[in-house]
Amino acid sequence: MNTQAQTTPTADPQQTAASYFKDLQERICQAFEALEPNGATFDVTPWEKDPDAQLQGSGEMRLMRGEVFEKVGVNFSDVYGTFSPEFAKQIPGALENGGKFRATGVSLVSHMSNPHVPTVHMNVRRIETSQSWYGGGADLTPTFAYDEDTQAFHAAMQQACDGYRDGAYDEYKKWCDEYFHIQHWDEPRGVGGIFFDNVNSNDEDKDFAFVQAVGEAFLTIYPQLVAQRMAQPFTEAEKTTQLYKRGRYVEFNLLYDRGTKFGFATGGNPEAILMSMPPEVRW
Amino acid sequence: MNTQAQTTPTADPQQTAASYFKDLQERICQAFEALEPNGATFDVTPWEKDPDAQLQGSGEMRLMRGEVFEKVGVNFSDVYGTFSPEFAKQIPGALENGGKFRATGVSLVSHMSNPHVPTVHMNVRRIETSQSWYGGGADLTPTFAYDEDTQAFHAAMQQACDGYRDGAYDEYKKWCDEYFHIQHWDEPRGVGGIFFDNVNSNDEDKDFAFVQAVGEAFLTIYPQLVAQRMAQPFTEAEKTTQLYKRGRYVEFNLLYDRGTKFGFATGGNPEAILMSMPPEVRW
Repeated sequence: MNTQAQTTPTADPQQTAASYFKDLQERICQAFEALEPNGATFDVTPWEKDPDAQLQGSGEMRLMRGEVFEKVGVNFSDVYGTFSPEFAKQIPGALENGGKFRATGVSLVSHMSNPHVPTVHMNVRRIETSQSWYGGGADLTPTFAYDEDTQAFHAAMQQACDGYRDGAYDEYKKWCDEYFHIQHWDEPRGVGGIFFDNVNSNDEDKDFAFVQAVGEAFLTIYPQLVAQRMAQPFTEAEKTTQLYKRGRYVEFNLLYDRGTKFGFATGGNPEAILMSMPPEVRW
Repeated sequence: MNTQAQTTPTADPQQTAASYFKDLQERICQAFEALEPNGATFDVTPWEKDPDAQLQGSGEMRLMRGEVFEKVGVNFSDVYGTFSPEFAKQIPGALENGGKFRATGVSLVSHMSNPHVPTVHMNVRRIETSQSWYGGGADLTPTFAYDEDTQAFHAAMQQACDGYRDGAYDEYKKWCDEYFHIQHWDEPRGVGGIFFDNVNSNDEDKDFAFVQAVGEAFLTIYPQLVAQRMAQPFTEAEKTTQLYKRGRYVEFNLLYDRGTKFGFATGGNPEAILMSMPPEVRW
């Protein structure tokens, strides 16, 4: 926990956001565990960076290999450090601050045993350089897309956006479709959702409320979608189709994903960064 | 086939190299098929680029999913085109030539059913911009390293290098170890081999002979290593270890490999580029 950089801890928005993200991680894990029929639980691995490391701070990886959730990682981190001069050029406000930054967030990817249950990705984060902003989003990647699941997911994300400002949903939905496009196959990774970055309206409370709304919307809708499909029968062929679909997910995350690149570029924990990798994949 | 760029076809070194690479592909595939006990054979997929595409030329993908070779791709290509201005900056002699290039080569990766048989990667290529050079190499990635296999492989590569020039082997072996290092885990991808690029001694015949020696050394040693280990008993746990080891291979190829980046940056065929992906992987 970065106590040195804050003078009034309770009023530090980065600290406030970190507290919410940690709590969200806990509640998401509880909701996922509640869906496991035979008591599977998350393995919890707290980590703390060496004070001499490029990246400092702490975090908590939570990983469950259950019956419903074949593999799901829900990671929290609250870190600070100094970007390399080259990397600092790419980050708003970083050069003006000698490359110093703080970052906190929660990030998750689920890979489901039942190929009829969609994979989901969700991330909410707050970054501070000489500027500060929120980023994140949530998107669905089914192997077999069901319109009603897609619509319910989109509706939940729209509700979170509509409370923030007019036009936000259309903008963030479009951004999601553009971002999660697998360029070399010219195909979408999944059925979309929302994606946003550099969110700063000069109203910290409003922006924070938006990110909370995204977290809560996710926490409501995804466990519902899982519960509705987890007992649906599936064939060996459908499972195999899912394993190949996961290959595209791996390609996207390692070739294009900014979070992965950000993680490696800042000396992040590879175990945590790669928790998004599926348990079993085929090509 | 790029006939426009050549005035005396038989004396065109790019064409001579392409003919050798195509023949090498054929002989490698025959050697691999000969190791399959029940007649598995390569699927052959010739491809030709649309004359309007960014990349022009043709190639042939060969893929076998056999009993000994769980999945092996052996690809030949002979292409030409124009690099994007941004990409041209990174390639020797490309800017001086308006970004125009020709590239031909053969590339293979094997993923073996028996976890005691090492994965291998081999590539030899010739590139032409306003300059020309050879590149390539071969390296071994065992799940369970056997000293005698490693030594036999290194000895074969050393012999190919020793015929070229003093010091080449040590240089290319070191380059291989540096290149195939998985930065985020700070661990080697495998047990190495040789890696070389921008090889041009101003003696085309000598350089071409070296690349041929690498191809022939590979063709001699790897089928021997496969034959010696393919019937060795293995446990379920050893197979599982191999599947996790393959995850690291995927991480390297998608995060760091230049060939993959070169392929996507020049509008290459994703099916061919991703033929190196293992048939089954776990994380």
